[in-house]
Amino acid sequence: VSELANRVLSGDLRATARLCRLADDRVPGYRDAMKALYPHTRGAWMVGITGNPGAGKSTLVDRLLRLLRAEGVRVGVVAVDPTSPFSGGAILGDRIRMQEHFSDPDVFIRSVATRGALGGLSRSALDIARVLAGWGAKVVLIETVGVGQDELEIANTADSTLVVVAPGLGDDVQALKAGILECADVFAVNKADLAGADAAAADLEHMLSLGADTTVVHGHRVSSVASNSIGERWIPPVLKCVASRGDGVAEILTALRAHRAWLESERGSARRFARAKLALTERLKDALAERVVGENETAIDVLAAKVLSGAVDPYSAVDELLGTNA
Amino acid sequence: VSELANRVLSGDLRATARLCRLADDRVPGYRDAMKALYPHTRGAWMVGITGNPGAGKSTLVDRLLRLLRAEGVRVGVVAVDPTSPFSGGAILGDRIRMQEHFSDPDVFIRSVATRGALGGLSRSALDIARVLAGWGAKVVLIETVGVGQDELEIANTADSTLVVVAPGLGDDVQALKAGILECADVFAVNKADLAGADAAAADLEHMLSLGADTTVVHGHRVSSVASNSIGERWIPPVLKCVASRGDGVAEILTALRAHRAWLESERGSARRFARAKLALTERLKDALAERVVGENETAIDVLAAKVLSGAVDPYSAVDELLGTNA
Repeated sequence: VSELANRVLSGDLRATARLCRLADDRVPGYRDAMKALYPHTRGAWMVGITGNPGAGKSTLVDRLLRLLRAEGVRVGVVAVDPTSPFSGGAILGDRIRMQEHFSDPDVFIRSVATRGALGGLSRSALDIARVLAGWGAKVVLIETVGVGQDELEIANTADSTLVVVAPGLGDDVQALKAGILECADVFAVNKADLAGADAAAADLEHMLSLGADTTVVHGHRVSSVASNSIGERWIPPVLKCVASRGDGVAEILTALRAHRAWLESERGSARRFARAKLALTERLKDALAERVVGENETAIDVLAAKVLSGAVDPYSAVDELLGTNA
Repeated sequence: VSELANRVLSGDLRATARLCRLADDRVPGYRDAMKALYPHTRGAWMVGITGNPGAGKSTLVDRLLRLLRAEGVRVGVVAVDPTSPFSGGAILGDRIRMQEHFSDPDVFIRSVATRGALGGLSRSALDIARVLAGWGAKVVLIETVGVGQDELEIANTADSTLVVVAPGLGDDVQALKAGILECADVFAVNKADLAGADAAAADLEHMLSLGADTTVVHGHRVSSVASNSIGERWIPPVLKCVASRGDGVAEILTALRAHRAWLESERGSARRFARAKLALTERLKDALAERVVGENETAIDVLAAKVLSGAVDPYSAVDELLGTNA
């Protein structure tokens, strides 16, 4: 196992792919490899990219990847996808445009799919991002669809999160935008050549100004004592771009780097702590679920049958399951 | 507490609202009320309604609600919303069109918002649906945005799930459609008066035919021994509608009722079991997270600080936390 970690750290592509798979499949022992890897990955920059379907996230990821590669930076990409049992795994969808990067030896792209009842999407995505950092990625771009709880958690545990919006995506956009608003360190209003882009940007600025008198650190209200000084807050910039042409993308990367510098300064310490705590809590929940659900499959089957027949209610069934694990 | 349950069972609106709140806030003791309530709720029909943003779910829910009310059926509605710390809770968004139902004494509408780090969205939604069943709702409509893991879990634990799609929602729709495909018991192609509706319906039929030789029970592959007979499978019908005018909505309700009849027949037993098992597993995971995360907040704080300083890696930190709870 530690040999596998060493091979990943030496930049071995096959070992990296193998450890990604082991982590995703929760093969016993992968955690030992992760422990060996971890201390070497603390310098990597994890960048979350999220936003509504159709906002152009993949195109923007492709452009950011090109900019970083032009600087010679080694990059990892984690694409978080909904699963289809029909297709049997992650759907690459419009990520076909990423194909040219697959032949670049300094780019590693890995998809992570939503799992079944056991869940664990955020744990998988974080672990795989960590493996890519071990392989040598200085920047790991983690692309998610920004709607579900898991995806929000991933965005909230990244170092810096870019939220991509676009004008004209239907009447529910307003509601979704609010759901992902507090993840954002930088906003990109993509498709800025379309009508409605200025309105969308103004809308975001307005929403941000509404939040300005509350102390919100990236989706988590914190006590105003901890960080109510304006000097400690990061105000997310709202930047327009046309990702399909590459316009405005360099400015987005610059803004993300400014956020990183803020995060690593003294002023970013509350945010760093909140992030570390959330990531640890997620890992704990995931490990608990894996252990207890895995060890009690038969008991769960028996109790599910009893719930169906009306012999027990589901609340008492959980008590019974927890009793055996207390 | 059992007095509260009794008041809910007698149809008391204020008691119902109170138990919804207790369940959502995880106030200690709410589970005892749920246990008292549960045996009286087994006849309620839980209907999940999910689909992409902009597909017109709320309009369709409104129309289904009107049809059911015209029959004199008491109905509960659970609207699962993304949370915004800025707005401080659930966003009603375009659910304003539901407003007329708020004055109907036989309709109870409750929103459930995505939570913070503790998660538990699916548990909250299921509990609140159960409370509404206790209040006397014969049908509970549970509306979610069909993208995240939690939302998929809610859809997968409903008795019958309607997946709403609409033509022309941008290039990511294809991918999302696949993610929610396996939840569906009935498909509604809404906005059928728009160009592309026939193509969307044909697309769905094609996807369903691709899955036809695999035995898929609502998002969970099951062994082909258990239910590979065509007689035991439910083939989701694909129905067109224009929810804004009410066209085709009665046919959708009829199809959902046909699904319910199938589910309650011998042929639906594998599906009933899968649903009960998934719901129980979700409750178990949630109860575990609540107990262990709640009891270890200080230890998590200390370890998160150690992870930040590099004194420990997060994998070993989880081991340490689980060790104290083994």
